[in-house]
Amino acid sequence: MIAKKVQTLIDEGVGISRMFLDAAAMIAELGVENVYNFSIGNPSVEPPEAVKDAIISELNTQKPMALHSYTGSYGYADVRKAIADHENKNFGTNFGPNNVVMTVGAAGGLNLIFQILLNPGDEVITFAPYFSEYKCYAIHMDANLVLSGTDENFQPKLDEFEAKINEKTRIILINSPNNPSGAVYPEETLKKISDIAVKKSEEFGAPIYIIADEPYRYVAYDGVEVPYLPNCCKNAIVANSFSKSLSLPGERLGFLVIPSDIDDYAAIWNACNTVNRTMGFVNAPSLIQKAVAKCLDAEVDVEGYKRNRDLLWQGLVDIGYECFKPQGAFYLFMKSPIEDDWEFYEMAKKYQIVLGPGSGFGGPGYVRISYCVDYDMIQRSLPKFKELWDEVQSKK
Amino acid sequence: MIAKKVQTLIDEGVGISRMFLDAAAMIAELGVENVYNFSIGNPSVEPPEAVKDAIISELNTQKPMALHSYTGSYGYADVRKAIADHENKNFGTNFGPNNVVMTVGAAGGLNLIFQILLNPGDEVITFAPYFSEYKCYAIHMDANLVLSGTDENFQPKLDEFEAKINEKTRIILINSPNNPSGAVYPEETLKKISDIAVKKSEEFGAPIYIIADEPYRYVAYDGVEVPYLPNCCKNAIVANSFSKSLSLPGERLGFLVIPSDIDDYAAIWNACNTVNRTMGFVNAPSLIQKAVAKCLDAEVDVEGYKRNRDLLWQGLVDIGYECFKPQGAFYLFMKSPIEDDWEFYEMAKKYQIVLGPGSGFGGPGYVRISYCVDYDMIQRSLPKFKELWDEVQSKK
Repeated sequence: MIAKKVQTLIDEGVGISRMFLDAAAMIAELGVENVYNFSIGNPSVEPPEAVKDAIISELNTQKPMALHSYTGSYGYADVRKAIADHENKNFGTNFGPNNVVMTVGAAGGLNLIFQILLNPGDEVITFAPYFSEYKCYAIHMDANLVLSGTDENFQPKLDEFEAKINEKTRIILINSPNNPSGAVYPEETLKKISDIAVKKSEEFGAPIYIIADEPYRYVAYDGVEVPYLPNCCKNAIVANSFSKSLSLPGERLGFLVIPSDIDDYAAIWNACNTVNRTMGFVNAPSLIQKAVAKCLDAEVDVEGYKRNRDLLWQGLVDIGYECFKPQGAFYLFMKSPIEDDWEFYEMAKKYQIVLGPGSGFGGPGYVRISYCVDYDMIQRSLPKFKELWDEVQSKK
Repeated sequence: MIAKKVQTLIDEGVGISRMFLDAAAMIAELGVENVYNFSIGNPSVEPPEAVKDAIISELNTQKPMALHSYTGSYGYADVRKAIADHENKNFGTNFGPNNVVMTVGAAGGLNLIFQILLNPGDEVITFAPYFSEYKCYAIHMDANLVLSGTDENFQPKLDEFEAKINEKTRIILINSPNNPSGAVYPEETLKKISDIAVKKSEEFGAPIYIIADEPYRYVAYDGVEVPYLPNCCKNAIVANSFSKSLSLPGERLGFLVIPSDIDDYAAIWNACNTVNRTMGFVNAPSLIQKAVAKCLDAEVDVEGYKRNRDLLWQGLVDIGYECFKPQGAFYLFMKSPIEDDWEFYEMAKKYQIVLGPGSGFGGPGYVRISYCVDYDMIQRSLPKFKELWDEVQSKK
């Protein structure tokens, strides 16, 4: 008797759920030290000490009422100003508190802006491979997620993208650094995406928004530039969170940046006030808003992720696997050495390796390997990956 | 260009918004000490010191990863067990961790269970006057909120209720202690509501769920019993939060109790896992889950609210106003001495009194007076209420 939409959402997630359930079952049976669990995208480096210090300092110096009351739908004004200032300092923008909405994580922010912009039947375009939750967010709005392809380096194919825009297209959703591919889209590509969106928007007579979901902005390697969309795209809105940049995913703290110069800014800004409340978020959690505002310049140990990436990528390539070298985030999207990624997933399980089948991320023929794990586990896993490789070759 | 549904939600909230905007404008013009702002339902008593101690203790004794990581969609298992044990101790129930979902406040919990149970066009019945957000939650699901009347003591009219149930009715939403009336529904009434729902459910061949939204459970006066719905209603689900019981509304921590013996328990429980995530909540904020689990027996100073109620209620009755004496929550729902509550609202503003017009809560001809305010403000407001009364009488 559960709602039809909910059954659709559950069916949609069966693939992804299966890898988590398999990992849990294997750990229960074999012990955590004997399972190479690469399925989960939990940050594995510690939050900076500054976060703890800031929480305790707030508790010791502020009145409880100032820390635990409703913050208003947009969030504390001083926190929003601190974040606007931080964006301005980093990206040369000119935002104020009325360009920042504090949200219940980036997921809450995306649901909020989807609800505001999407009527039933509208379309959201994103580039595959993609974070599979996006489809669920669209389903909640009775909208459709449309996938547009990428090349062998997981960069958008712009011709295909242009052809997929129609009169129902309301949102282009950009996730760079990308989950699951680890690709970062360069500024030139983003400008072209924006130009195409502008042209199509004029052709169809309705605005198209480019939404950057960028929880991995600060998890990028080798000095790669992660362009800031409001600086190179028209009608850009940014969704971000502190889940990865400060390793606080459980705290559910994120924000939207809504530039004043986007189409219908006033209506969108005003709608946030109502909709953040009526969707049940009400406001982003209060104490952690105040604490995080005090440590916006703190960083987690991105070098830890880089060390993991280097070990894993080099190890897999040395064995013979075909791997794009991730530029950011903490996932490696490896080509499955056999065509069917689910079949490869099952083979890997025999070696106690749990992967993420690419089909679950709009990338069939690949597997996602989350390297937000212990360095030591990666080291121990490589001989197993070698055995797996040898089995595959022996069957060819 | 914002979504049609969102425009509906904004239009729906115009009345309620107006009182907040009026209060803010008056405070800006006259100073906070010269405005008697009874419009807002923010808890006004401090959170217990135990909450601060528990947060600091967790930060000092647990690894950061154990406090700030994703908790899983249902919340931490040990926290869910602590809450189940607390309910069992208080209400003689037999719940375990698989009967408790941690949610982003009660609002997040209600949206979650609405999404799981409601198909478009389905109906939710609640008793008027009612908390106006309920209508918005239904709108998000493309469902309809149906109001059923109450008597002069704000107790449900059961004949009317029975007549309003039809084949589309999926949820009966009970809010006791009630916002805005302050009424508490006795066990006998709740049992009758359940019996009627069971009878109708059999008639129409589909389950009807009785959802208790009870953020004010622990804000009740004079020893009045607040019955626990799972003990007296079939198919009862409880939504609660720590917003009022621990004065932590900004932290967005709540929970659903989903008893194992309700119809389709397994499907509903399973759906929570997916839907809490896909709606963008992901999980209830993590650190505060851990901290609150350590102070479930802590209480805010309910006596403070009772002192406010007594002063305000007696003061208004002595002047001549007609007021039901609230049994719980922190609102008084006063009969407007003139028929049009919006007109009375405007009259009151001339005396720097900001009220909540009852029309905004499904109770035209009444005004909501939130007494979660300073005792001193109530004292100073009473002469103003007298002047307002005298003006009304002079015009009769």
